[in-house]
This record gives sequence, C-alpha cells and structure tokens, in this order.
Amino acid sequence: MSGTLYIVATPIGNLNDLTPRAAATFGNVDFIAAEDTRVTLKLLNYLGLKKPLVNYFEHNKREMGEKVLDRIHAGESCALCSDAGMPAISDPGEQ
Amino acid sequence: MSGTLYIVATPIGNLNDLTPRAAATFGNVDFIAAEDTRVTLKLLNYLGLKKPLVNYFEHNKREMGEKVLDRIHAGESCALCSDAGMPAISDPGEQ
Repeated sequence: MSGTLYIVATPIGNLNDLTPRAAATFGNVDFIAAEDTRVTLKLLNYLGLKKPLVNYFEHNKREMGEKVLDRIHAGESCALCSDAGMPAISDPGEQ
Repeated sequence: MSGTLYIVATPIGNLNDLTPRAAATFGNVDFIAAEDTRVTLKLLNYLGLKKPLVNYFEHNKREMGEKVLDRIHAGESCALCSDAGMPAISDPGEQ
C-alpha cells in the first residue's frame, strides 16, 4: 500500500509560527523532502527531531521527484516542505 | 502609553493549526476583540485560557471600534481575531 505525501507549511520568519500539526507531521513521517536541507535541519533541531532528509528543489525536481514518488509508492510517508511558507502555494517556488 | 493591537490568525478547521505565537498572544493580552465571542470562547477553552471578550464584527465595528481603540489608548493590549483565518486579510470580513 502506498504511503502519504504531506505538504507542510513552515514559518516565514518566526519559529513560533510553526503549527503543532506541522510539528507532528514532521515527527510522524518516514522522511522529509526539503527545498534546502540546511534550512529544514535547523527547524528539526528546534523541534528536537531527527529525520532522513532529501533535497528536492527546482533543479532536481524531475529526477528527485521520481525517487520520492517511488518511496511513497513503496509505503513510506513523506513531508514536502520549502524553506518558508507553503510549498507550491505561497512560496517563491510557486509555478 | 498606548497598548498594542495584535491581529491574530485562527485555524480554519483544525485546532492544531493554531500557532504557539497566536496562543501566547491570547495569553498575554488584556482583552480579545472577537468576530463571534462564542467561537473564540471555544478556542480559549481549548487553550485553557480565560480572557475578557468583546464582540467586534461587521455591524458594530464603528461603535465598538471606538471603544476598543479607547481601551488601547488607555494602555490595554488587545488581540483582534475573526472566527477563522486572518482578520482583514484572508477572512470573510475582508474589504
């Protein structure tokens, strides 16, 4: 059975704007696809969480997107997040 | 010295989307100006907070707005919130 892809909004300037639901999602998923793993690592450290991270950003999205989808199809759950804001909706990477 | 008016976003469907900063703001202000005090009371109960509430909504905003501003000018701090979303920005009451 396939896993789940969660789209997670992250704070745009104040870590106290991270919602409990976003924190819980990061805690529950198998891995995180992050626009910049360095930025997301800081957030995870703030939350006291350790999770496998993969880089998923503009210039590797085709190749990495396939890999992320393969893992989800294989049953893993993934949180997708950008550096700040809501991926694909209110985000510099919106297209 | 005048107090502060905080504009506080509230969840649109999941209480776990309330940010720690919003909860802290509700906890710190002197009173809350709410679009519907019944809705906001539920939120305060969820947070375990007791705060004086005033109704501030479309049809009393001129009269109540004066009163709220008077209290802020007198030094009280106020959190303004709607039933859901961000008052005046992403809210049914947006104008």
